[in-house]
Amino acid sequence: MAMKQVACSAIKAVTNSGSSSLLTRQLHASPGSKKIVGVFYKANEYFTKNPNFVGCVEGALGLRQWLESKGHQYIVTDDKDGADCELDKHIPDLHVLISTPFHPAYVTAERIKKAKNLQLLLTAGIGSDHVDLKAAAEAGLTVAEVTGSNVVSVAEDELMRILILVRNFLPGYHQVITGDWNVAGIAYRAYDLEGKMVGTIGAGRIGKLLLQRLKPFNCNLLYHDRVKIDPELEKQTGAKFEEDLDAMLPKCDIIVVNTPLTEKTRGMFNKDRIAKMKKGVLIVNNARGAIMDTQAVVDACSSGHIAGYSGDVWFPQPAPKDHPWRYMPNQAMTPHISGTTIDAQLRYAAGVKDMLERYFKGEEFPAQNYIVKEGELAPQYR
Amino acid sequence: MAMKQVACSAIKAVTNSGSSSLLTRQLHASPGSKKIVGVFYKANEYFTKNPNFVGCVEGALGLRQWLESKGHQYIVTDDKDGADCELDKHIPDLHVLISTPFHPAYVTAERIKKAKNLQLLLTAGIGSDHVDLKAAAEAGLTVAEVTGSNVVSVAEDELMRILILVRNFLPGYHQVITGDWNVAGIAYRAYDLEGKMVGTIGAGRIGKLLLQRLKPFNCNLLYHDRVKIDPELEKQTGAKFEEDLDAMLPKCDIIVVNTPLTEKTRGMFNKDRIAKMKKGVLIVNNARGAIMDTQAVVDACSSGHIAGYSGDVWFPQPAPKDHPWRYMPNQAMTPHISGTTIDAQLRYAAGVKDMLERYFKGEEFPAQNYIVKEGELAPQYR
Repeated sequence: MAMKQVACSAIKAVTNSGSSSLLTRQLHASPGSKKIVGVFYKANEYFTKNPNFVGCVEGALGLRQWLESKGHQYIVTDDKDGADCELDKHIPDLHVLISTPFHPAYVTAERIKKAKNLQLLLTAGIGSDHVDLKAAAEAGLTVAEVTGSNVVSVAEDELMRILILVRNFLPGYHQVITGDWNVAGIAYRAYDLEGKMVGTIGAGRIGKLLLQRLKPFNCNLLYHDRVKIDPELEKQTGAKFEEDLDAMLPKCDIIVVNTPLTEKTRGMFNKDRIAKMKKGVLIVNNARGAIMDTQAVVDACSSGHIAGYSGDVWFPQPAPKDHPWRYMPNQAMTPHISGTTIDAQLRYAAGVKDMLERYFKGEEFPAQNYIVKEGELAPQYR
Repeated sequence: MAMKQVACSAIKAVTNSGSSSLLTRQLHASPGSKKIVGVFYKANEYFTKNPNFVGCVEGALGLRQWLESKGHQYIVTDDKDGADCELDKHIPDLHVLISTPFHPAYVTAERIKKAKNLQLLLTAGIGSDHVDLKAAAEAGLTVAEVTGSNVVSVAEDELMRILILVRNFLPGYHQVITGDWNVAGIAYRAYDLEGKMVGTIGAGRIGKLLLQRLKPFNCNLLYHDRVKIDPELEKQTGAKFEEDLDAMLPKCDIIVVNTPLTEKTRGMFNKDRIAKMKKGVLIVNNARGAIMDTQAVVDACSSGHIAGYSGDVWFPQPAPKDHPWRYMPNQAMTPHISGTTIDAQLRYAAGVKDMLERYFKGEEFPAQNYIVKEGELAPQYR
């Protein structure tokens, strides 16, 4: 195939130039047909209920007609795990894999090794931790996501979850559907958000939007990150920087996790760290499930040390039927949904199309979209 | 009893002065013991779980020691309805009745007629529509509430409910607890709040706080009220005044009800008015259940014209087991809870104590607290 030849000459050129990126595969597409595979969640009967529902297998990000009219092959599936899954059938000869955090195709080192034609991994959404980024970098691939496409969606969802926990919404809802009425059973642990100490771990794009939305609630706002946010935004939101995470944790009534999953953050909220939090803390985590030690969260919810836990991220996804977070007390969990509202889908579908167009033309992507650029890992993932 | 004599001389004095308030009972207490009855929800096993849980029968607004040390009789109960209920036993000789909107003691004309010693009706919270205000005014009573005590609590709760509906939270939560995982079943009707048209009907204390909290979500904000809000707040929130309610309704993706229940607003959202709303409208109502036509809401939720309905107010309260709002599709209801967070309880308990102190001393209440002042109805209830 034409692409393979171009890729070989690219490697040759790089080798000749003495670059260390020996294994870099050619990022930009050669003319000619590409095999593009998309892995999304399946909509079934829900697909026809909304003409803008593009984020599912059936909607296929609205790219089918466009890709096929250009002579490309476009395969979409939700069958991503287990022996003989549909995804694995296409791994050996696909050029581009589009995946999402909501129904993640786990792009392991093994899959990358088998994907001889693979050049480009696109995440429709934000968060590419379902890809083995080190292996992808070593294979010279490019991994890019639609940075910013659903940050508003996630920040809004976080504020909803904060309120659901602080105000003890779910026990009230349960009373309604079970024919009960017991205001005391809700009120004894329902609070205003006003005046509470809220800390975000991570103040990147989503964390900042959350701080802005929290501002009129008159809370006390803290944030922990590697670097301070813009002084103007600090002034606008009143959020105070906490350099030392472990010093911040005991101060917070509510903790929101807004950090990417990396080797540094995997399992960072273990038993010891949860013990440093205030008794009765509320936790919102729409970042990644694997940032938490699963069992430590269950134990702390059971003991009451954590008084409420809400989020939409799990490991693995889909969460198995017996995932203990489904059954722990005071949880307000959902499947992975916050970044895949209809509005978000339209934005990340447009962002994927834009990157494919650039890929076909041999143009650069928007700089902030790169997670791995031709074998080089973005700084925050190193 | 001393009070009765004073009341009689007050009426005599008024009669002599030729005032039309012939039936005005003496507002301020005479020296001597008063019988004060409080009607609150019962906490049972929840009472001991939180030392600040003062809003229940057992907590009795934290007033018992203080009232009894002053020689007053203080009776609290949750038994407020039906023949031989505890409340009715005390109606003939109580001087002050403290009630709440959360577990409303319905102070009917009949009860007022029987309450020969009654002078003062205090609402621990906001919203005194459980009192027949016309009858109370005709009897020369004073009705007062703790204005402002829980406006923040209610406004926060409204924003939570907006987000719960817009983002389709509950179907996701149901999937989690039933062992399911179907992102599409949530996502096909989950949206961002950003960019949507939100209209509040009523922009009083709560409506204004809601508009301020909505501001950073970048919605389009509308409000309908009898009068325009302060131009500065209009500028700050970007909210636009809509003089004609029926012209505003079809524009809104989300409608929030923030108007008191009066004879003008009772049943205002009937079949015809709901038909004027956009198909797929989301409604949040933490104001009063009786502002809605119960069956019209059920029908519109069933047809899908209303795509989501959330609130904490019902008629009557407690809502009976067969109240149809418990079983209609796309509801996110709770018992009446939004204004009785622990923070709100502490504030309205303090406000009730302040008014009782003033009543004992013969001092005026804060002007904004009066709903009926010695037989005169506040303007918005006329």
